[in-house]
Amino acid sequence: MYRYRTPYVEPLSEESLEVLDRGWRRLVSELGIAFDHPEARRLLVAAGQEVDGEVVRLDPEFVLAQVANAPRSFTLLARNPARNVVVGDDQAIFLPTQGAPFVRRGAERREGTLADFSDLVRIAQLLDDLDSPGGLPCEPNDRPLDSRHLDMTSTLLRLSDKPIMGAQISGVAAEDSIALARIVFGGRFETGPCLHTVVNVNSPLRYDGRMLEALLAHAAVGSAIVVTPFLLMGAMAPVSIPAALVQQTAEALAGIALAQLVRPGCPVVMGSFLSNTDMQSGAPGFGGPESALGLLASGQIARRLGLPWRSGGGALTTSLVPDAQAGFEGAITMTAALQAGANMVMHTAGWLEGGLTVGFEKLVVDIDVVRTLRALREPLEVDEASLAFEAHDEVRHGGHFFGAAHTLERFRTCFHRPLNSTTRNFERWTREGAQDAAARASAIVDGWLAAYEEPRLDDAVAAEVDEYVTRRRRELGD
Amino acid sequence: MYRYRTPYVEPLSEESLEVLDRGWRRLVSELGIAFDHPEARRLLVAAGQEVDGEVVRLDPEFVLAQVANAPRSFTLLARNPARNVVVGDDQAIFLPTQGAPFVRRGAERREGTLADFSDLVRIAQLLDDLDSPGGLPCEPNDRPLDSRHLDMTSTLLRLSDKPIMGAQISGVAAEDSIALARIVFGGRFETGPCLHTVVNVNSPLRYDGRMLEALLAHAAVGSAIVVTPFLLMGAMAPVSIPAALVQQTAEALAGIALAQLVRPGCPVVMGSFLSNTDMQSGAPGFGGPESALGLLASGQIARRLGLPWRSGGGALTTSLVPDAQAGFEGAITMTAALQAGANMVMHTAGWLEGGLTVGFEKLVVDIDVVRTLRALREPLEVDEASLAFEAHDEVRHGGHFFGAAHTLERFRTCFHRPLNSTTRNFERWTREGAQDAAARASAIVDGWLAAYEEPRLDDAVAAEVDEYVTRRRRELGD
Repeated sequence: MYRYRTPYVEPLSEESLEVLDRGWRRLVSELGIAFDHPEARRLLVAAGQEVDGEVVRLDPEFVLAQVANAPRSFTLLARNPARNVVVGDDQAIFLPTQGAPFVRRGAERREGTLADFSDLVRIAQLLDDLDSPGGLPCEPNDRPLDSRHLDMTSTLLRLSDKPIMGAQISGVAAEDSIALARIVFGGRFETGPCLHTVVNVNSPLRYDGRMLEALLAHAAVGSAIVVTPFLLMGAMAPVSIPAALVQQTAEALAGIALAQLVRPGCPVVMGSFLSNTDMQSGAPGFGGPESALGLLASGQIARRLGLPWRSGGGALTTSLVPDAQAGFEGAITMTAALQAGANMVMHTAGWLEGGLTVGFEKLVVDIDVVRTLRALREPLEVDEASLAFEAHDEVRHGGHFFGAAHTLERFRTCFHRPLNSTTRNFERWTREGAQDAAARASAIVDGWLAAYEEPRLDDAVAAEVDEYVTRRRRELGD
Repeated sequence: MYRYRTPYVEPLSEESLEVLDRGWRRLVSELGIAFDHPEARRLLVAAGQEVDGEVVRLDPEFVLAQVANAPRSFTLLARNPARNVVVGDDQAIFLPTQGAPFVRRGAERREGTLADFSDLVRIAQLLDDLDSPGGLPCEPNDRPLDSRHLDMTSTLLRLSDKPIMGAQISGVAAEDSIALARIVFGGRFETGPCLHTVVNVNSPLRYDGRMLEALLAHAAVGSAIVVTPFLLMGAMAPVSIPAALVQQTAEALAGIALAQLVRPGCPVVMGSFLSNTDMQSGAPGFGGPESALGLLASGQIARRLGLPWRSGGGALTTSLVPDAQAGFEGAITMTAALQAGANMVMHTAGWLEGGLTVGFEKLVVDIDVVRTLRALREPLEVDEASLAFEAHDEVRHGGHFFGAAHTLERFRTCFHRPLNSTTRNFERWTREGAQDAAARASAIVDGWLAAYEEPRLDDAVAAEVDEYVTRRRRELGD
């Protein structure tokens, strides 16, 4: 968990904000949003909105009235209450990369497995930099598709005592993850959100049936719902940042309004995931100036609406390996997420290949990035003592400060110390094997996995979880 | 050349600025600055300052009165007047890495030669991203030490028609570079600064004799002088960012005041190069949060003083190779330089190993970084047309924008297009050789060098340059 103590970077003027505000109002009211689920449409019509086939035309004032029911910030409950985290206002949480079907470890790139999934959960549990393992640190492709969510949720609950994500790929999966969380959280389940979940929009301007099933199921029990339009300009949005911002606002607010109809006060997060398409190849582009600028603007819009905000990235990149491109693209996107004041940073660490792959070594690199950027965002405290006049008086002209009293009192903690980055000179670095950042990172991953300790789960609870998983797996036919 | 059109990031409050202001005043007046050159001391004493051995105690009001004589911005003249550039106010120029004794190209790391020097000048000449080759893109170690400056200045004047740096390693070198520039610029030499040069401080609080010789020689003819304290906190400065900022201001202003005494109105740049020492090893550290925060603060201080400002970095890193560490450290430092509003960005591209090495492939990576960050710093124009409502009306719910009229009209130019970064998918990238960013960059370097064309220099002028170099080389005994 992290608290912003210095100003945000805000690229939009008041006038620009007003143009954008008129823009989303026009989209929801004139073109409307398609909801591919009868219950969703029923709720919206019952609340006075106009339906035409799948499409619901929304009154912007109705949308804002619903949005006003959402909390500005909320606490995500963790299995270990000491690991509860606050999302919203000036507080931020960080999650590793989510959703990658592939993993890269060293030179190998292959389909993710439940073992990889488990290792990534272990790393997220171990690192103080990460507040939640999320729900899908990689796809466990070796598990049967119909019951995979059971493996995922039970693994998350067993290997981590931080807040976790509930399943969202279908209503059935969502309900199972909710049932498992109920077992583990017991009476605490009713006291606050014990799951968070991401509901993606089928952009442009459409929610599909499975996502709506998940939204309805999670909203009913008060899970925190991160409503996220995933917009690649040129593909799911026009090739214009303002147009994409307006679309993102329209889509996110429509989903948030629906969640509030299901359960007024349901914790929600306005999600953003805004980047562009490489218009030569049609491939997704990440780490460029458009997505960074989009992040800065998105944060400002969410604050104006009084909503917690999730940034789309994270250390995003299109690079396939943890190389220089991956390093700088990730740093540029992460800088924007932090300067924009993201309350929830998804894909903090590990992202490669436009999200198709989670890289273990990239994860290490990204932890260095986020630590650096968090330190850089701290206030610079300036007072008489900080000027260290006595050190100058001791060292005087042309001397050095290595042995100064002021230095000796502070040298252990005075500077940020990187995890994996090297300051070795060429001779020593060569002697030690001439390893680049990715090669050095492999040893850090091994060390993390060796250091991990499984957080204790009450035996009876663990048995009940196993029993539920076994029964449901059978019922689902796997 | 680049113009800042969006706000700077400014971490210092008015109160902090005042504490820092009192700090530098105290340093220059109570401890003073050592000047290892009789003429420098003579000038300062003649202007009423108090001398004690090498040390001159400076009246802060005297210093500020001298600083007020310096222009807020000025034009650096280029051999080709179309390549003149403005330094100061909201305008920025970019230079490649300077001063590296070693070069890295592909897997090879070796001592730089005049051939490498020439290739780096050619690249700086070719790229619109770079406004000057500087003066020392790498050390030409294969040339004799005493006359090396002749090789350097004559090569710069021959291979580039952009503004160039004059020599500063000694008074003799400075005078030779001035004489060569006079030959090439002819009558234009008297009309404005035809050379710029960096004068480093022997921090803490001391100017050595050779640097002062160069400062006096260049100031006498009105070269633009970039007065740069090079501060590694823990070594040449206390382990405190505010203390280093105060020291940097004291040192820079003392040198700038001296330059103004030599020639009132002499164009100067307040230089900064502020980073920290790795306190475990004593090695220099670059790319961390302290140096980035120092940059943001330094820019703010220079603007308050009304001086053009040079940022120390650039795409700095301690990494030895163009890997993920080099990528993100460079991006973080460059982000800070641009957000701080640097008027002169030194070490824009190529920096490795804390500046000991200039990497050709790193240079390519850094050009992608600076292009991305410059694009990111552009204003986000928001108006009704930018919302592209007609595109939404055309595509509607769940469609895609690839074929929308709005997209087709704009797809060629709507997004930033990287130079070296890839958006290839895994299959195609593998088929093409599975090259990382550094490997791909090698081909770009080759392409640049093939595309370079030497700018025409009048035959008579070229002959006069050669004649001067030959004569002076003989006189210097090489």
